[in-house]
Amino acid sequence: MKALDLKRLNIAILGLGNIGTGTYKALDMNGGHIKDTTGLDIAVKKIFEKDVDRDRGIAVDKGLFTQSEEDVFGDPDIDVVVELVGGVDFATSLMLKAMKAGKHVVTANKAALAANFEELTQTAEDCGVMLRYEASVGGGIPIIAPLTTSLLANRYDEIMGILNGTTNYILTKMSDEGRDYADVLKEAQEKGFAEADPTADVEGEDVANKLSILMSLAFGKRVPPGEIPTKGITEITKQDIDDAEKEGCVIKLVASAFRQGDGDVSCFIQPTLLNREHPLASVGNEYNAIYVKGNAVDDLMFYGKGAGPLPTASAVLGDVIEIGRAVK
Amino acid sequence: MKALDLKRLNIAILGLGNIGTGTYKALDMNGGHIKDTTGLDIAVKKIFEKDVDRDRGIAVDKGLFTQSEEDVFGDPDIDVVVELVGGVDFATSLMLKAMKAGKHVVTANKAALAANFEELTQTAEDCGVMLRYEASVGGGIPIIAPLTTSLLANRYDEIMGILNGTTNYILTKMSDEGRDYADVLKEAQEKGFAEADPTADVEGEDVANKLSILMSLAFGKRVPPGEIPTKGITEITKQDIDDAEKEGCVIKLVASAFRQGDGDVSCFIQPTLLNREHPLASVGNEYNAIYVKGNAVDDLMFYGKGAGPLPTASAVLGDVIEIGRAVK
Repeated sequence: MKALDLKRLNIAILGLGNIGTGTYKALDMNGGHIKDTTGLDIAVKKIFEKDVDRDRGIAVDKGLFTQSEEDVFGDPDIDVVVELVGGVDFATSLMLKAMKAGKHVVTANKAALAANFEELTQTAEDCGVMLRYEASVGGGIPIIAPLTTSLLANRYDEIMGILNGTTNYILTKMSDEGRDYADVLKEAQEKGFAEADPTADVEGEDVANKLSILMSLAFGKRVPPGEIPTKGITEITKQDIDDAEKEGCVIKLVASAFRQGDGDVSCFIQPTLLNREHPLASVGNEYNAIYVKGNAVDDLMFYGKGAGPLPTASAVLGDVIEIGRAVK
Repeated sequence: MKALDLKRLNIAILGLGNIGTGTYKALDMNGGHIKDTTGLDIAVKKIFEKDVDRDRGIAVDKGLFTQSEEDVFGDPDIDVVVELVGGVDFATSLMLKAMKAGKHVVTANKAALAANFEELTQTAEDCGVMLRYEASVGGGIPIIAPLTTSLLANRYDEIMGILNGTTNYILTKMSDEGRDYADVLKEAQEKGFAEADPTADVEGEDVANKLSILMSLAFGKRVPPGEIPTKGITEITKQDIDDAEKEGCVIKLVASAFRQGDGDVSCFIQPTLLNREHPLASVGNEYNAIYVKGNAVDDLMFYGKGAGPLPTASAVLGDVIEIGRAVK
């Protein structure tokens, strides 16, 4: 194999929480490998973050930290801004500023994307920069890229997703161990698999953000997450799961979007009985999966870890690499 | 949504057999949709094929047929050559001629690629053209693209694939219906799911071609298919399957490649006992799946139809679209 010409790509990370730290660690772990296989020398040039001193389990050069937006957006050497601060309004404003300053943007932020999809994508187009967000749906699972590249010869007819690891973990434990919802939720919170306030997960709000993004891409139909009929898992009982099993089914929190006979696209999120033969039925614990039906390819499923610092970092850095290969 | 500027992309199809006909049909079915979503107006300008009169279940303009290579490679209007003649030597020579004539090439031909991987990829590089082959592994399943784009931030540690629909169909029927190998093979041949001479499928040769391609991409390691230790399914008995079931396992023909402790990559193809919990265990009938383990993303699985005219056409046309978007 020939040596590649090395090309330097400077990134700024906004937010060094769980995913930001995972991204930093993954780059520390695999930066050399990425250099060897792609020729891209990816360097973190700035970290926009207040909390300099938190123990992140990895040494981070304190000289990289800044609390000044100007330090990031005004630095002509920074090619890509990686937005991992989370939340909606502040994150959106940072992404807009970055793009208007000519920076390409990578984000894992499903809430900000789902809330402001048109403004963000239109700004990227207007500014002539790339906005990539593979990590926003399905964590490390490649799904945004296949839907928007490899599978473009299809008219999509249906998308069904298990898009939230916390709820899938709870339903799997309830089913495997015959336990109650409240009991499993408490254990999940103690183990750190569920938040102290689990509302966004168990009520399906997180899933609605992801389904909204998938629908924009697969069907060209914009449905704000608040308008997707959504039912979470809080009312599922042990009895429901037993009844499902008697019918050869499992209960999963499924996000569905499908083309109706008249061509219009319907969507909803709800606990759904899946026959054990369905590809999504065997997706257990914290795993996510997206089932896609196209009119040429027929049915497909993409399966993997839908959350976690390193799997999410895989998607974030994959987007950074794609930008690097396109612009360098 | 704004109207896109239409860009014409002219293709030539070499070989109008099953996959060629599927590609023609898929373009007939979805060409308008592709135009609307990508702005690419893909037109078949030439079909290199002797058999003009065969009933293909779709009207093909007889004026497109030619038996002259010059008509294809010498036509400056043809942007992309889609090689679907099958076989090794003639197909390889056609692809090389196409690339040397400045044409981008898309192929579904695993045998030609596995046999001549360096020569084909090097020629593409030397000629400054794109060579794409998503359809060569896993039919319609996006796997080549994810491995070479979205997942590049990973060091790949393991790939396991169910890469042949015929053998997976036979093993699934043997298991579900308690039948013998010979009996199921005969039925599969009668139904057209297995060839009259099933050797390439049941002895694992087809799988070896696909694993060889995956290893080149994921591990940068070239192993000619004939050098991959390969055992097919011809000796699997009903008793073997019963014994596996007693241990909570299923038998699948699995292609494996994995990084050893010393960094070297091992590979083999053989009937393998999979615990029912393994993501590949529930992949039944003619379906294919590829399990990938990366050191950041952890485990992933890509599942779908590994063969058939329309699923394969989805991958072929996906590659054509990617070329169109890159060069037009």
